[in-house]
Amino acid sequence: MQEIVDFILELDKLKGVTRKVRPLGLERYENSAEHSWHIALLAASLVRFAEPGVDLARVVAMLLVHDIGEIDAGDVIFFAEGGKAERQAAERAAVERIFGLLPDGQGAGFLALWQEFEEGSTAEARFAHAADRAMPVLLNLNNHGQSWRENGISYERVVAGVAPPIRAGCPALWEYLAVRLEAAREQGLFGA
Amino acid sequence: MQEIVDFILELDKLKGVTRKVRPLGLERYENSAEHSWHIALLAASLVRFAEPGVDLARVVAMLLVHDIGEIDAGDVIFFAEGGKAERQAAERAAVERIFGLLPDGQGAGFLALWQEFEEGSTAEARFAHAADRAMPVLLNLNNHGQSWRENGISYERVVAGVAPPIRAGCPALWEYLAVRLEAAREQGLFGA
Repeated sequence: MQEIVDFILELDKLKGVTRKVRPLGLERYENSAEHSWHIALLAASLVRFAEPGVDLARVVAMLLVHDIGEIDAGDVIFFAEGGKAERQAAERAAVERIFGLLPDGQGAGFLALWQEFEEGSTAEARFAHAADRAMPVLLNLNNHGQSWRENGISYERVVAGVAPPIRAGCPALWEYLAVRLEAAREQGLFGA
Repeated sequence: MQEIVDFILELDKLKGVTRKVRPLGLERYENSAEHSWHIALLAASLVRFAEPGVDLARVVAMLLVHDIGEIDAGDVIFFAEGGKAERQAAERAAVERIFGLLPDGQGAGFLALWQEFEEGSTAEARFAHAADRAMPVLLNLNNHGQSWRENGISYERVVAGVAPPIRAGCPALWEYLAVRLEAAREQGLFGA
């Protein structure tokens, strides 16, 4: 039991890993723990638009663990250029350390979920990625493009970055967002 | 799709509902969104100690939605005396409003999960309650009794409040906590 408690207290640190988007109406930045909660419910709400047969429980479990590597490695904006291999290696080392706190190989199940999300090759992982990529877009669309403007992210970079994973995982969601992103461009919600 | 998006943006408000416990090492108070994420992973980590046959996916789903009523009703410390019926009614009205944002009766599934947690009569709901009640205890045990001392909560009130639900939902977790709480009393981590 003590090993499980040590693991859970280690996870507490994800509440201190901040992202670039602010929750609507709040001054502070979002953290990766509350983000993980939010996208788990986004996936659950969108399940009618998932590929037939998608196992929602596995999608939710993946989304709850997908950012845990940031406890050691920090959050890096999705649009960062370069250093991707180093970041992936750092997050991999982090989750091996953290899931390794659990007894009797119990961490292997969590690590497999994390790995499945990283690889993105199952229908569940693709759907999970769509939720993860869509959430900051939805917040920005309703927050005057806050993190796009603060970080100088253009319309073209947003679309090039998020269209492929969202279209692959949840085409109906991409159809909705494409129209809203085009309107946001006309309203000047993007960085240069 | 717009109705689902409206629902998800409404959920964003739970990130602004603060609780009485602070995450370890942070000055700010915990919010109910990150708390929900944390206890979903606590339940997943403790599943070997759940009643045989417990459906972990339903436990996780319950924990992700159980605090959504606080968006309208706010968080009230578990040890508050009185007003329980009014709080329950306010939270019930809130979740009916919020889950009602979803199209085609889709909110009924979420409402059923919320209701199952509230009633606490299934094995899944009991296990979920144990995780929900144990998490602030674990944080306080590792945070010098921060919220107990700040709110004048005695050892006796903590034990009277959390022992029954944790013992009912996860006896092994209560055995662990009972020893730690006794040690914390000797260290003076409680309020008067």
